[in-house]
Amino acid sequence: MAYELYYWPTLQGRGEFVRLALEAAGAPYVDIARGREDAGQGLPALLRGLAGLDGPDDPHRPLAPPYLRDGKFVVGQTAAILQYLGPELKLVARSEQARVWTLQIQLTIADLVTEAHDTHHPVDVNLHYEDQKPEAKRRALAFCSDRMPKFLVWFDHLVKHNPAGPRWLVGGRLSYADLSLFQLVEGLQYAFPNAAQRALRGKPSLRDLHERVAALPRVAAYLASERRIPFNETGIFRRYPELDLV
Amino acid sequence: MAYELYYWPTLQGRGEFVRLALEAAGAPYVDIARGREDAGQGLPALLRGLAGLDGPDDPHRPLAPPYLRDGKFVVGQTAAILQYLGPELKLVARSEQARVWTLQIQLTIADLVTEAHDTHHPVDVNLHYEDQKPEAKRRALAFCSDRMPKFLVWFDHLVKHNPAGPRWLVGGRLSYADLSLFQLVEGLQYAFPNAAQRALRGKPSLRDLHERVAALPRVAAYLASERRIPFNETGIFRRYPELDLV
Repeated sequence: MAYELYYWPTLQGRGEFVRLALEAAGAPYVDIARGREDAGQGLPALLRGLAGLDGPDDPHRPLAPPYLRDGKFVVGQTAAILQYLGPELKLVARSEQARVWTLQIQLTIADLVTEAHDTHHPVDVNLHYEDQKPEAKRRALAFCSDRMPKFLVWFDHLVKHNPAGPRWLVGGRLSYADLSLFQLVEGLQYAFPNAAQRALRGKPSLRDLHERVAALPRVAAYLASERRIPFNETGIFRRYPELDLV
Repeated sequence: MAYELYYWPTLQGRGEFVRLALEAAGAPYVDIARGREDAGQGLPALLRGLAGLDGPDDPHRPLAPPYLRDGKFVVGQTAAILQYLGPELKLVARSEQARVWTLQIQLTIADLVTEAHDTHHPVDVNLHYEDQKPEAKRRALAFCSDRMPKFLVWFDHLVKHNPAGPRWLVGGRLSYADLSLFQLVEGLQYAFPNAAQRALRGKPSLRDLHERVAALPRVAAYLASERRIPFNETGIFRRYPELDLV
């Protein structure tokens, strides 16, 4: 049975980390909110699920998208979804220690994703960017000059010092963390073209990994398809030139 | 061999979620940065570890505290540490689905912890609160009026609708998520006494779980000991009355 992914239908956001894992593994899935309403899908299905896929007393009600249904099992939170999918999609090594290490990397990617989001929403997630522009500029300055470089140094270190060689983050084969790091770099380059270029300078290992992921046949096919939603200014990574500070 | 916990020695912060798990399980551990420098511990040991416990090329160098060493294995990121410790300390159910569900709850707790932190550091983590007070007030208003209540409704729902009964979050026994939820409520009550009281109103299941955790003999002994660092204004949960907005 196909996995059911529930996420906002018009943006990449946090759902994209799950989409990339499913696509890279060639796993059958339905992107529910992008489906047709007359087939019981679309945005209404996403919103219904937030109230509990099994009704209002559903003990496993998710707090927010993305969430994933696999048969009777429902899981939310991007890193938890990937922790669950990893072994199923063969996108994580088998040992408990390798799984935890992969999770640790994913959580650190997630931290920087949150900080990238907060550059345009530093004080209130329910207001528009236009309502918090001065605060956004302060936050973006700290993000571009300190936070993004600090994290990218760490990811670069991991790739360079992987005992199995600098092809992937964990061991000698692709994991979901590689896909997520690709998406993070992709998003940073979209939202902060100048600051990201500067932060990536002198990090060929990180750039190579990014290109290696993009060239994986299933990933390349996905990126070229209309299933890949283009970056836009409703997602996490938004191109506001006034926040691209170097 | 005792676990080695590496975290800032004078604050609860994210390390407290790990301390609580170790304490509740009665596990032997050394809180390295609180040890004596002449025994190779203390703050210098924490900082040395950030540069790589096995030297500068250490492939598993942590990005930030807390991190944990168990023999040769090192793991950072609070939720990843707990994912690792859970089975070792018998603080998580055995099935993969229960482990993922517990992780999902932990990650959601972590999200609210980050948002609580950002009430006093909305634009720059490297500046003092005093340098971002107007922005902090805006962020705290959104936190107190919208974010904290929204999350507490969700946690309350989980406890109330746990198919095994409303004693714990997952199944019929204590998990690390219960300990973390206790710490979250404790922190919210310290930092935002009025707003937290309001958000907890009408949520007896959540309050009961909080008291049930506090009354666990090992937890009660820990909280009464000097190993429990008091809340203070260098941690995540800070009592700034001007941010306690109802």
